[in-house]
Amino acid sequence: MTQINKELKTKSGNSNSGLFGKDFLLTWGKSMENLETILSVAEDLKMLRDRNISPRCFDSGLAISQFRDNSTRTRFSFASAANLLGLTVQDLDEGKSQIAHGETVRETSAMISFLSDIIGIRDDMYLGAGNTYMREVGAALDEAYADGVLPQRPGIINLQCDIDHPTQSMADLLHLKTVFGSLENLKGKKIAMTWAYSPSYGKPLSVPQGIIGLMTRFGMQVDLAYPEGYDLIPEVVELAGKQAAECGGQFRTVNSMEEAFAGADIVYPKSWAPFHVMERRTGLLRKNDYDGLKSLEKECLSNNARYKNWECTEDKMKLTRDGKALYLHCLPADISGVSCLEGEVAATVFERYRIPLYKQAGFKPYIIAAMMLTNRFEDPARVLRNVEHRGRERVI
Amino acid sequence: MTQINKELKTKSGNSNSGLFGKDFLLTWGKSMENLETILSVAEDLKMLRDRNISPRCFDSGLAISQFRDNSTRTRFSFASAANLLGLTVQDLDEGKSQIAHGETVRETSAMISFLSDIIGIRDDMYLGAGNTYMREVGAALDEAYADGVLPQRPGIINLQCDIDHPTQSMADLLHLKTVFGSLENLKGKKIAMTWAYSPSYGKPLSVPQGIIGLMTRFGMQVDLAYPEGYDLIPEVVELAGKQAAECGGQFRTVNSMEEAFAGADIVYPKSWAPFHVMERRTGLLRKNDYDGLKSLEKECLSNNARYKNWECTEDKMKLTRDGKALYLHCLPADISGVSCLEGEVAATVFERYRIPLYKQAGFKPYIIAAMMLTNRFEDPARVLRNVEHRGRERVI
Amino acid sequence: MTQINKELKTKSGNSNSGLFGKDFLLTWGKSMENLETILSVAEDLKMLRDRNISPRCFDSGLAISQFRDNSTRTRFSFASAANLLGLTVQDLDEGKSQIAHGETVRETSAMISFLSDIIGIRDDMYLGAGNTYMREVGAALDEAYADGVLPQRPGIINLQCDIDHPTQSMADLLHLKTVFGSLENLKGKKIAMTWAYSPSYGKPLSVPQGIIGLMTRFGMQVDLAYPEGYDLIPEVVELAGKQAAECGGQFRTVNSMEEAFAGADIVYPKSWAPFHVMERRTGLLRKNDYDGLKSLEKECLSNNARYKNWECTEDKMKLTRDGKALYLHCLPADISGVSCLEGEVAATVFERYRIPLYKQAGFKPYIIAAMMLTNRFEDPARVLRNVEHRGRERVI
Repeated sequence: MTQINKELKTKSGNSNSGLFGKDFLLTWGKSMENLETILSVAEDLKMLRDRNISPRCFDSGLAISQFRDNSTRTRFSFASAANLLGLTVQDLDEGKSQIAHGETVRETSAMISFLSDIIGIRDDMYLGAGNTYMREVGAALDEAYADGVLPQRPGIINLQCDIDHPTQSMADLLHLKTVFGSLENLKGKKIAMTWAYSPSYGKPLSVPQGIIGLMTRFGMQVDLAYPEGYDLIPEVVELAGKQAAECGGQFRTVNSMEEAFAGADIVYPKSWAPFHVMERRTGLLRKNDYDGLKSLEKECLSNNARYKNWECTEDKMKLTRDGKALYLHCLPADISGVSCLEGEVAATVFERYRIPLYKQAGFKPYIIAAMMLTNRFEDPARVLRNVEHRGRERVI
Repeated sequence: MTQINKELKTKSGNSNSGLFGKDFLLTWGKSMENLETILSVAEDLKMLRDRNISPRCFDSGLAISQFRDNSTRTRFSFASAANLLGLTVQDLDEGKSQIAHGETVRETSAMISFLSDIIGIRDDMYLGAGNTYMREVGAALDEAYADGVLPQRPGIINLQCDIDHPTQSMADLLHLKTVFGSLENLKGKKIAMTWAYSPSYGKPLSVPQGIIGLMTRFGMQVDLAYPEGYDLIPEVVELAGKQAAECGGQFRTVNSMEEAFAGADIVYPKSWAPFHVMERRTGLLRKNDYDGLKSLEKECLSNNARYKNWECTEDKMKLTRDGKALYLHCLPADISGVSCLEGEVAATVFERYRIPLYKQAGFKPYIIAAMMLTNRFEDPARVLRNVEHRGRERVI
Repeated sequence: MTQINKELKTKSGNSNSGLFGKDFLLTWGKSMENLETILSVAEDLKMLRDRNISPRCFDSGLAISQFRDNSTRTRFSFASAANLLGLTVQDLDEGKSQIAHGETVRETSAMISFLSDIIGIRDDMYLGAGNTYMREVGAALDEAYADGVLPQRPGIINLQCDIDHPTQSMADLLHLKTVFGSLENLKGKKIAMTWAYSPSYGKPLSVPQGIIGLMTRFGMQVDLAYPEGYDLIPEVVELAGKQAAECGGQFRTVNSMEEAFAGADIVYPKSWAPFHVMERRTGLLRKNDYDGLKSLEKECLSNNARYKNWECTEDKMKLTRDGKALYLHCLPADISGVSCLEGEVAATVFERYRIPLYKQAGFKPYIIAAMMLTNRFEDPARVLRNVEHRGRERVI
């Protein structure tokens, strides 16, 4: 059994402005203090639950989820987080709604929000659309609240968009904090965020973008590696460079997995589709051009196939610091010989890091719960102290 | 921020017979006192929640929903209402059930109800079927309760049928009460329930029927207007006439939008399919005659197209009292130039009334919660006083 | 109204080892004492709820359901049970998840379980697969818990597999205990578990197998009857024989419905597909061989048609003890002239036993709740006493 730390980490001194009443759309839209608050609230919620203390702070209320793409772990993480705090998930299933009837985002956003506290949205299919959609929903909610239509302004949590995947990258960060002992200890560490071969195409850019957009703020040396042509959204790459410069870290782009792995403390090999492919794909999706999509897929897969050597093998792992870099993945990974013939990672490498990877995934419900809690409460530390003091058992 | 009225409106003197343990299927099946109780309980629930007092009165229990047609706002309203009172929604999804295997209504009704408190049903596709189905479910529940199969008789709430849409019309009525200050003030007011052009066909009759079946009881002058041939179910029209006569109001049918709008205090322009078309459509749906449905649609749309001038324009609004009638719609509306090329209402008219319309929609969760509460509790006023006195915070 | 017995039946003396922290996959994997505990906990939970005492013992927590086949009553029973105890159902819908992407059972099982208490699985489509799948999930959970990935090991409840249907057979047993007064009174009673004609094919074997696997343990005379060729899984039949011998009962297989009915106290006529057909069907399903499935269905239906006289008619009922055997069915039944032209049971027989059948079905939510409670609590009697003493009203 894990030993349980019994001290609440979140301090009231931590200002919650930037989180309270503010949507969580991009990690780089939040201050360092905000990010640290999310981490400590997540740790505290986990600690309370592990001690069988229920951190429930809603007697009723809805947490709406809208998944415009398939999801297992984020869906369950969102459901777990809502449930832990006392909110009930209500899924907005566009197939079962009247949204197809030409209803506007402005109207739907108000209609689902009369008694809602949180809205979680996954929208990662269309480049240029996902984050924009979340902002449109946010603007609609602002307006409806200002107009007196809504009694409160529900908070939006980005459950993955075309630009960022903050619940993933923050769970990854909490994992790194846990493994390396503190955020402070991440300074100077080298992380290799690298493309890897996959037999599927069209994987979103949000994970690599989320990683370089977050890790460059902690004084790390961030290497982004990909085969020529597999670029990310240029603005995010530019931002990563700026942030690294401001935060005492480094950021560079290389075209070699080996170069990125060399001396790395952490490696994150993960497939994605090139930015310009996602742009073309978005255009074809919008036109429902299935033939075009088919031929784009074919073209991309044959292009991908030129880079099958971009696999996280045992040999490549030997290039990392003492051959023991921490391997990360957002899961599910394309594991060579397990879930596919040739994929992102060798089976032995994956298996060696499987347990830490699963623990990494286990932080996500708490990260989402922390985003919910900091959005709804001005002083999260006070709320945590109160529920701890209340001492209500989660299980009697 | 809205100023909060802190006095409970529901009085124990209000008899709850007619509501307690009785299904809510048609507003005209309820006494005036019943309707007033629904409104005041809804207002009280809203007031309590706005004061952060949780009106939760179930520690556990299921509220079953069965949607035989797509729905956004009613689905979310039902979920919000159930959640507010402490019930958990369980959706009866016929596609995922064994109902397709020829299971009888009598059997299914019992099987889903062992631990259920409320059943909400939307069934508006087949003329002559929706309300009948609800009554069949009700009879099955009566029988199962009498037989000792069920420990209690769950209450049924009509979430829209082929005849009435009581959660909508009651939310509309609460909106009118709020805007005009009291039910008393509605006396003598003129309301125009009129057909309007839409580029889609087959819209249900339940909204116009619900409106004329409810508003004729409050001493209003109700004008029902539609192009020749767009009749409603004759029995409901007859009932509206009778009620108006009994309640000191007026009811007439006209074939001109302008005539109905003239001097109106309230206008409700909304498309629907003619009664006889719905009858034919029901026959075709039952036979899965897709070609027949296609050709019926074509015929109807071309007929509709003859009445594009039945649009709620600025010019028509000028005909109303001081040009300032309150515009109502159950939403989503077909807004010309916004959600369609030519539709039910001009964009400027809709936009001017958008905020009140959204507020109108915001009453629906509370109306449904009031229907639930009055169905389950003999003395709703006592329950409301108790939860107020208990003072449990909805959000800590 | 039912008279309410106010005494808790579950005693702390009842050892809960075998249930606490152990999956409920097969009734024959549980001791007699375990089965009696499930029954008494179910009765106590029903009694408490009937007295309006909420047995809620979770302040939050998830009960995951995974239905790989359609379900109404088991789905609602699971939802009701979870809700009664304070758990929230989260459905694992494989169509909406990333499981299709080749994710392993090991990984998915961990990913959905971070904050989960219970996992209910229905998987009855593939012979040799359903129970195996549950064990794979169980092994994955064991491993994830041992590895520190999960803070606790969620319990699995078999909601029907290819081998057993324990929530059904235990609900049937509680029904028999209620009707005959005690488990003791079942000794020497004759039960006829017999095949019956149905115009559909491919019905699972889990119900007849579950019945012979359970009822042979209570000193009953169990007759299994079917037309030649309609065998069950041989291992289960063998087990039934062994159990009967050990428990002072009798078990035999006959090829005549009349022979099984002769002098029976209880009859359970129910269609199923022959074991070897289910094997062929499984092979075809795995290959997505729709033509093969079609022709297998045709072949089987024509074979079934040779046994239309295997119907539970009034005449056959007359063969039973005093012509008054208790008729059982897991529902929905194929009722001749009601849900099909010719089926498993005559309409008059079914109708005469309809109310007891529905009551039988009404035990299922409580059986499932008892499985949940005994899985999570070492001393269920103490929990029941505590919630009784707490006296929290289910409905205020």
